[in-house]
Parts: sequence; structure tokens; C-alpha cells
Amino acid sequence: MKRYSRPPEKDWVALTKRPSSQNKDLDDIVRKIVNDVKIRGDKALFEYSGKLDNASLTSLKVPDEEIVDASEQVSHGLKKAIDTARKNIDKFHAAQAITEPAMETTPGVRCWRKNIPIEKVGLYVPGGSAPLFSTVLMLGIPAVIAGCNRIIVCTPPDRSGKANPVILYTCSILGIREIYVAGGAQAIAAMAFGTESVPAVNKIFGPGNQYVTRAKEIVMEGGVAIDMPAGPSEVLVIADKDADPEFIASDLLSQAEHGPDSQVILLTDDEGLVPEVEREINLQLEILPRKGIAQEALSHSRSVVLDSLEKCVDFSNLYAPEHLIINTVNPQLIAEKVKNAGSVFLGKYSCESAGDYASGTNHTLPTNGFAVSYSGVSTESFMKRITYQEISFGGINSIGPAIMEMAEAESLLAHKNSVSIRLKNRNNV
Amino acid sequence: MKRYSRPPEKDWVALTKRPSSQNKDLDDIVRKIVNDVKIRGDKALFEYSGKLDNASLTSLKVPDEEIVDASEQVSHGLKKAIDTARKNIDKFHAAQAITEPAMETTPGVRCWRKNIPIEKVGLYVPGGSAPLFSTVLMLGIPAVIAGCNRIIVCTPPDRSGKANPVILYTCSILGIREIYVAGGAQAIAAMAFGTESVPAVNKIFGPGNQYVTRAKEIVMEGGVAIDMPAGPSEVLVIADKDADPEFIASDLLSQAEHGPDSQVILLTDDEGLVPEVEREINLQLEILPRKGIAQEALSHSRSVVLDSLEKCVDFSNLYAPEHLIINTVNPQLIAEKVKNAGSVFLGKYSCESAGDYASGTNHTLPTNGFAVSYSGVSTESFMKRITYQEISFGGINSIGPAIMEMAEAESLLAHKNSVSIRLKNRNNV
Repeated sequence: MKRYSRPPEKDWVALTKRPSSQNKDLDDIVRKIVNDVKIRGDKALFEYSGKLDNASLTSLKVPDEEIVDASEQVSHGLKKAIDTARKNIDKFHAAQAITEPAMETTPGVRCWRKNIPIEKVGLYVPGGSAPLFSTVLMLGIPAVIAGCNRIIVCTPPDRSGKANPVILYTCSILGIREIYVAGGAQAIAAMAFGTESVPAVNKIFGPGNQYVTRAKEIVMEGGVAIDMPAGPSEVLVIADKDADPEFIASDLLSQAEHGPDSQVILLTDDEGLVPEVEREINLQLEILPRKGIAQEALSHSRSVVLDSLEKCVDFSNLYAPEHLIINTVNPQLIAEKVKNAGSVFLGKYSCESAGDYASGTNHTLPTNGFAVSYSGVSTESFMKRITYQEISFGGINSIGPAIMEMAEAESLLAHKNSVSIRLKNRNNV
Repeated sequence: MKRYSRPPEKDWVALTKRPSSQNKDLDDIVRKIVNDVKIRGDKALFEYSGKLDNASLTSLKVPDEEIVDASEQVSHGLKKAIDTARKNIDKFHAAQAITEPAMETTPGVRCWRKNIPIEKVGLYVPGGSAPLFSTVLMLGIPAVIAGCNRIIVCTPPDRSGKANPVILYTCSILGIREIYVAGGAQAIAAMAFGTESVPAVNKIFGPGNQYVTRAKEIVMEGGVAIDMPAGPSEVLVIADKDADPEFIASDLLSQAEHGPDSQVILLTDDEGLVPEVEREINLQLEILPRKGIAQEALSHSRSVVLDSLEKCVDFSNLYAPEHLIINTVNPQLIAEKVKNAGSVFLGKYSCESAGDYASGTNHTLPTNGFAVSYSGVSTESFMKRITYQEISFGGINSIGPAIMEMAEAESLLAHKNSVSIRLKNRNNV
């Protein structure tokens, strides 16, 4: 981690910059894959599985019996853990997407909104270096609560052509049975355009590497919705002198182990805390299986000492972190000043991994500064809100003159006529 | 309007297609403008105003006194009309963005969401053939309700370099005083990247022609959020034998007059209704100042007779119209079956122009079939929902074992450690 002590505010913008990942080659590679799948369908998917996953596939849909059998490969302890997480996530997301009651904006003018599920959604669940069955919970639970009619999952095959059994098991307990072994950009293209095996969906969700992320952006140009633009994962910790360096180090490392491009930032008003945290990081690093990845992530990460906790939250708002941990004596005071963040963790026991797995909040969050304008995934992400209005003759009689006046001022005479025709037809009352 | 009678279901997909507007030239032109503004700032904006708006500008920000003076150029009647619309829109949008109460998902694990305004938003208000001050209401009111810190408006200048006075007046009554005379793709680029005069914003809203729409998509690639992707405006009317052909014709025309690329569709179970509506359209067309535009829109529009109203709503769900008017005896029955639409109008007096101006619902809606996955603009569009969690020692003690089990199964050991370190430090309770 690079240390910065009391940098002047004019330098903050530079210090909140993410490592750039503009890559023209990446775009070319991904566009080629996306087009290939769009044109050649399953055939292209089989070829990419051979080439990129070293898997020789003859079908893409996971057979029902394989999903059932997966349960036997999951330990009792893990099942119990998944069940705990599931209950909390379910509870938090079931309370979302509240429908306001209908209202009369003017007597006779009744207006309301209704939450309607997006019909077909596709969830991308990464396999690879870590099979993220937790993502199945985070995307599948709100999709089920929203009431999406068709929920499909794409996940990469291992070398034997199989999907990860814990991913299959987690799908099965949510009632998701339409699972395809397809990974990377090619899976995103398949869900966007459909192939002989994989149905086209209306919205695609899920994390992934830079190929997956770029593919989501590309298919979005073609009209398919995506959960949000994405970049590498990140955490920002605001800590004061009372924070335990061991806790802070463990939080920074649990973000750093995600990938070499992860970013972790420590902000504090206590100069003495920084070397203590660094020492703890070095100790804890030693025992990590993903030590190399974490070290690389730490190499472009930062600690910044600022004059006060207020300045820390100002800096954090400028950075707009995906995860913000407030490890201070009075975290509520800081939390009230948060303007830009994906998810906020208050106090010393609220570690990021709680939100990653089991506290109930969603872990699909805006990265790369997108938290200034985007929210994380929620039940609403799987719904549209349609507006409705029902107007009586009395209602149009009340607001009609205003509509006609405005339509005329906007030179839209047919708009005006649609009201005047109704008002003159009083016999239609 | 082209007539289709009882087309087989296999032909429906073709009949719900929008006129294609793929245009490589457009992309090149818009990218050039966007890059030019990004690099040269105000200088580029001045040049484009000269070239595209025939306006010779020396400054971009509308002076305060011009905003104040604009009030004198707006008639009393129009002011009253705007006030009626404003009250209804305000009432409908103030009831949105409800915050759910915090909850304990597990004892000691407190989770909640908080609505936080997007700090800086930019509203694009088209001028040109129709100065759309109604758009100021539809975007400005929810932005003010959401509590956005900085709300700016860009609107094209007339040939004398001035913004439309009704647009200025409408901004002023909402308290919006940061207005810039800039139009088209160049205005979108200015709000995305900032220039010497125009501040960069976090999210850009508003309708516009194909240049504006393409520019919004392009700046989105660079990380700026936009309200939604867009295409030409459209209405679909479902009508039965009891519907008044005069009313239907007026609704179809009020959409057709928007632009030559607008699309209007009539669905009915009554074969006899079609020629009656066509006759009414021809009668009403005669008196329209925008007759030519409406005729062009009608030339690629359709009437489709289907066997039943149930089939009509199935077809409509496939089309996913921006506006759906249900002009039948029992509109509620049909409305319950709606899956994809932007805004729905029930019954014979609920004309689209009511929603366009004054009933209270928003008129910024998903077009081009995007209603399958996108919602119209609402107060939520100007906010993020940030999740929070506060976990006690008891809380992490309850859910910690599940987190550790799951983290280990995902091979993320640092995630596991961040919990185990906290659990062993019982003295920190």
C-alpha cells in the first residue's frame, strides 16, 4: 500500500482515480465472440468451451438428474450455512419494492404505479478460480421474489464439462432448474441473443471478469438491459485511533484477495494507525492461499491520513466506494454524511464479508465510481414500475383546459384536440 | 395505416418490429461532436451553435435577469395551466421513493436502505420544432423532490441566441437557475464531461432527436449514467366495438404528430372499427398544422384486428408500447394482464395527452420495446439506494459460522479470516 499523509484537497481527485483499464484489444476480442455467438449459436458456444474452458461439451443444458445429484456433493455444514444466508437475504429483499397506494391527483384523475416482474432474466455465475455460489443467492432470491417468469443461469464448465455442484445445489433450493454450462463473453451473448439451447432474456445480471463485463456493455447497445456497468471490486475503510488494526487488515485483505485489479483504501485521522495496519496485513498475508493475488492488489492500493474523520468521509464521497466500512467509535455520525457508496458497514463487527454472504444485503454493487449514480441490485432490479391512470369525465373536465393550453403552447395541436373532442362529447358521460 | 386482419401468431413478432434506424453515419457524426466538445469545451459549443442552430453566442449561461424577465412573456392562462400540471406531477412524485424501515435479519444484524439523491443531474430540454417546457416539469419536479444538489438544464438557443421564455419560466418556478443555451449532441457531451461554462453531471436525463439519443449512449460508455435508452415515441390503442372512433383517432394522431418516425398501432377485436377510425383520422388530419409529420408517421403504422381482447393484450405485451391506451368497456380486466408497457391509460377519458402534461404521471417513458425491462422516469431515477448494516458482536457470532463455511467453500480465505479474527477477540465485546 502506498502511504499518503495529509494530501492537499486539490490532489484528492488524482488519489481517487481507479487504475485505468482502457483496452482496445479487449473490445475487439469480445465483439468477435459476441458476434460469433449471435450468428452461429450453440456451435460457437461448443467451440469456445473447447478453446477457453478446455471442456468438450455435447450439450449445454444441465440435466435435471445432475442438479438433483449435486445435493449429495454438498456437505451438511455448507448446506446449513447456505440456508442461514438464504433466510437473511430473503428477509431483506422481500421487504423491498413497496407499492405506493393509488392516489387522486385531482378529483377524477386516479394515478398509480404497479411493480411488474421482468419476464425473462439471465444470471451469470462465475466459476473459474472461485465458484461463486453466493452470487446465485444474491441474484436468484430477488428474481424469485420479484416473480420473474423465467430465470436462467449460465455458469462455466470445468474441464470435465460439468457445472460446479454447489452452484447447482444453490440453484435447486431456489427452484431454478434452467442452468446452462457456458462461461465468459460467450455466455452473455447467448443470453442476449438466444441460441438453439439458450433462450434470449430481457435483462442480464451478474459479475465476471473484464470479458464478461465488456460483453454486457456490448449487448446493452443492442437493447438488452444489464444490472449495471462494472469494474474491479473495491473497499474503502474509514478508521479512527480506536479501531483494531487486526480487523482493518482482515477487511482490506478480504477485498484484495478478489483479484489482482481489486483496490483497497484506508482513510484515517490517526497517523499511527497506518504502520500498525501494514504490519498486520503482512502477518495475515502469509497464511493466505491467494497471497499472490492479494499482494498485487495491495501494490496499487493506498492509505491516506487526513486531518479529521469529516475529511475522510468527504474523500470517500469523492471516491464513491463499492464497499465502505466505517470502523470508528461513532460510526452513525460518519454514516449520516455518506453521499456516494454501494454498501456501508458500520462499526467494528460489520465486516464486508458479512454483506458478501449472509447478513441479508445484496453483494452486487456499483464499482469503479458508479456509486455516484447507480444503486446495487435489489428486488426492484428485477421489476419494472408501470404507471397507470384512469380519468373520469369529471377528471378530464378539470385538467383538460390546462392540457389544451400547454399543448397549444408546445405547438402540438393533435394533443389539444384529443382533449377538446372528449370535452365536447358530453353526451358520452 | 396498414391494415392486418387476424394475422397468425407466428407473424406477430414481425408486426411488433419498430422501423429500424441503424445508422453508421449517425454514429460517426455524433462521436465526432462528442469528442470535440470533450477536448475543446466551450469553444466547440460556440462553433456548433453557429453551425447547427444559426445562433451566434458569446456566453452559454442564461443570465438571471433573462430568467426573471421570461415571466413577462408567458400568458396568465399558460401560467395557470403550468401550475395545475405542476401540482399534480408534484403530488404523484412526492409519494414515490418510499423508504422501508430498518430490519433485523438476525438478532444483532441490522440492515436498511437509504435513498440518497444523485448530487449533480443534467436535464436536456429540446427546443426546435416544439419547445418542450412540459419536459422541464417532468424532469425538474422529481429532481427537486429527490433533493439533487445541483440541477442544470441545457436547451438549444433560437436564432437570436436565446432560450425559449416558457422553458425559462418553468425552470424558474421550480427554482432551477442554472440554464445553458446548448442543444443537440454537443449539449449532452458538455454535461457529461464539463466545459469551462457547463459543469459535468453524474446523470443526464431528457428526450431528444436521434443525435441527442446517440450522444447519451456514447457518454454512457464513458461512465455517465443516463435516464434510459430511447427511440421514437409510440402509442398502442386497444379498443372494442364500444369505443368512440373520434377519440381513438385523436389519440393516434396526438402520437403521430410527434415526429415522422413515431409509431401508432390500433388493436381491436372489432373489424368494423378500423375503417371508422381511418375516416376519423383523415378528417382530423386536415386541420393539423403538423399534418405532414403525422402523415409520414401514419404511413408506417398499423391496425391489427385480432380474435379477442385477450389476444390484443398478448400482442401488446409482445410490442411493449411506451403508451398503452385501453379504450374498452371494462379496461381494468385488460389492465390486469399488462406485462410490458411504459404507461397505461384506462378508459375513454384517459387520453395520452393527459399523461403527457397534467395528470401527474411522468411522460419520460421507455420506447422502442425497452418497456420489457425499463421503467419510466420517477423520483427514484434521481436517487441511489444505499444499503447499510450494523452488526453487533452477538450478530456476527450468530451469522459468522455461516460466513466462514461459505467463504471457505468459495476459496476466499481472507473473507473467512475477517470473521474468525473478530470472533476470537471476545474481549472486544
